[in-house]
Amino acid sequence: MGPGPSDVPRRILDAMARPTIGHLDPEFIALMDEIKALLRFAFQTENALTFPVSAPGSAGMETCFVNLVEPGDTVIVCVNGVFGGRMVENVKRCGGVPVIVNDEWGQPVDPQKVEEALKANPQAKILAFVHAETSTGVLSDAKTLCALAQNHDCLTIMDAVTSLGGVPVKIDEWGVDAVYSGSQKCLSVPPGLSPISFGPRAIAALEARTTPVQSWFLDLSLVMNYWQGEGGRSYHHTAPINAMYGLHEGLLMLHEEGLEAAFARHQSQHADLRDGLEALDFSFLVAPQYRLPQLNTVRFPARVSDEAAVRKALLENHHLEIGAGLGALAGKVWRIGLMGASACPQNVQKCLGALEEELGA
Amino acid sequence: MGPGPSDVPRRILDAMARPTIGHLDPEFIALMDEIKALLRFAFQTENALTFPVSAPGSAGMETCFVNLVEPGDTVIVCVNGVFGGRMVENVKRCGGVPVIVNDEWGQPVDPQKVEEALKANPQAKILAFVHAETSTGVLSDAKTLCALAQNHDCLTIMDAVTSLGGVPVKIDEWGVDAVYSGSQKCLSVPPGLSPISFGPRAIAALEARTTPVQSWFLDLSLVMNYWQGEGGRSYHHTAPINAMYGLHEGLLMLHEEGLEAAFARHQSQHADLRDGLEALDFSFLVAPQYRLPQLNTVRFPARVSDEAAVRKALLENHHLEIGAGLGALAGKVWRIGLMGASACPQNVQKCLGALEEELGA
Repeated sequence: MGPGPSDVPRRILDAMARPTIGHLDPEFIALMDEIKALLRFAFQTENALTFPVSAPGSAGMETCFVNLVEPGDTVIVCVNGVFGGRMVENVKRCGGVPVIVNDEWGQPVDPQKVEEALKANPQAKILAFVHAETSTGVLSDAKTLCALAQNHDCLTIMDAVTSLGGVPVKIDEWGVDAVYSGSQKCLSVPPGLSPISFGPRAIAALEARTTPVQSWFLDLSLVMNYWQGEGGRSYHHTAPINAMYGLHEGLLMLHEEGLEAAFARHQSQHADLRDGLEALDFSFLVAPQYRLPQLNTVRFPARVSDEAAVRKALLENHHLEIGAGLGALAGKVWRIGLMGASACPQNVQKCLGALEEELGA
Repeated sequence: MGPGPSDVPRRILDAMARPTIGHLDPEFIALMDEIKALLRFAFQTENALTFPVSAPGSAGMETCFVNLVEPGDTVIVCVNGVFGGRMVENVKRCGGVPVIVNDEWGQPVDPQKVEEALKANPQAKILAFVHAETSTGVLSDAKTLCALAQNHDCLTIMDAVTSLGGVPVKIDEWGVDAVYSGSQKCLSVPPGLSPISFGPRAIAALEARTTPVQSWFLDLSLVMNYWQGEGGRSYHHTAPINAMYGLHEGLLMLHEEGLEAAFARHQSQHADLRDGLEALDFSFLVAPQYRLPQLNTVRFPARVSDEAAVRKALLENHHLEIGAGLGALAGKVWRIGLMGASACPQNVQKCLGALEEELGA
């Protein structure tokens, strides 16, 4: 019950233990096609260029930036937690010029500040923001931010690592141009893959590049020949076959449950956990309207004097992992995940029971 | 029996299906330490900075180049197949200046040409070469190449993707400064991880950089805090937990068998396969003294008119995958792998029997 990896259902683990076949085997190519279709379902998009990068979410982030940012490009980056900060780092390493829109950790991205930054930087090519900040548990208003970017002729890059599968992610309706996520959050698949989706405007920007993409491994103009080459896929790198089995199974499970049912389950389990935590004198970092149901960031009650010792006791006595604070929030909050399969009554009860035992009611 | 992924033993697949735990869980940190120790055994090195990159071999290659090449650096790259060519691409994308030493596909790297290139380019910082070319089945003389590089005060980057676990790879004895491999060849672990090792001279070069590493995901100055931070590991990215379980198990199996026994097994299975293939009128692309036992690259007999159709029949009628030719050798050769667990009498017999059935004796 940390901020990911989440609990992985046995069905997904078993899928990962199927015999490894070749990355150009027709059976595997067929599985790749199913994964793409299922990811389009999860992202609510028709984008053809939708597939999992063969590496964790951080590499998905880098895929978006190295393919879309050229040296000298201005990128407006919204920073309200660790992962916005990592986006800035990516922009710099691509030779881009970041314009930072800061918001307090625990607050959503402020659309008014973003609009001001867009007006002040008419040369900006991209607006980048984190939909669901894993370091704070905050949901930002992706729809509004995308509309602002479009009004100012800017592309958008959105981090949906923690949002995908837990709260609505509407790539086409909102007009997100490039998005990346992770397998190990609300999809409940082991870490190691990063689903991405690029829309037509992002592909046009990629095709209009005048400099090569600095990463060979993440260069979409090459990778896409493996994931969507017509009349035969060409080898780029060796895909992580068994990890793909797991992702396929996790996406199938999401499809069977349905997106709305999955979102409702995350909400209802969050409500139960919230009630229990508040009864134990925990308080939420984030205002109710911006709270992620799948990531509960809480300040602990006064009777917790050594927060690391309590987390250690939870792990050792109850086999329960909850997340520490990151960055500016280290030592100040806990992050309790209810992601994917972890968002279930058993986990809520286990967590509340363990806390009561360790802290006293 | 293609050029990788190789057959994955059930024991490794089962290990991958163990419950996913957190990437900062003390149990996982302990497993990481065991993986590092086992990789040092496999690479025959004492290098502290030895760990698996959280992505396939292509990302391991990129890790070596982005960390060691700065804009303007001269890199001598030996090209005798596809993967040497990919190294050149990596050098260019790092802003480096490649000096290419070409050898014919099917031939090893010629040390004399390398020495001439080193003499002609005293400013060269790095010599890069592929130990075992997966596109041709050729083994180059790593010991001699490393000695030449050292005589000219050059660092070495070695591709050991296909060699590790199949033929001797002696990082410390040869003085290789940076090496990368893959999980899916002679370690018989599913694809998705790239073991690397950096020696003291490579680390000194990394520390002496005047420009940031262009990849955030692959920046060793950051990643190493997760893999070897003293007194607590700091989060960098979420490691692919279950893939690590598999690599750990595969390395344990190699340790149980012993390196010399594994190398001898590859050699003896290769000898049996060679005899059978030659009896069927196949001929080897590579001269005996440069042949990789784990990757048999053969020209087919005259009675094979449509090589792709035969490979398709092998797959459909016998569930047997063998590899097509890559690049300049496409349509001209097959690549038959005897990697890791695939190097066993059952596979040799199955392959020869299937070929006899499809082609006639």
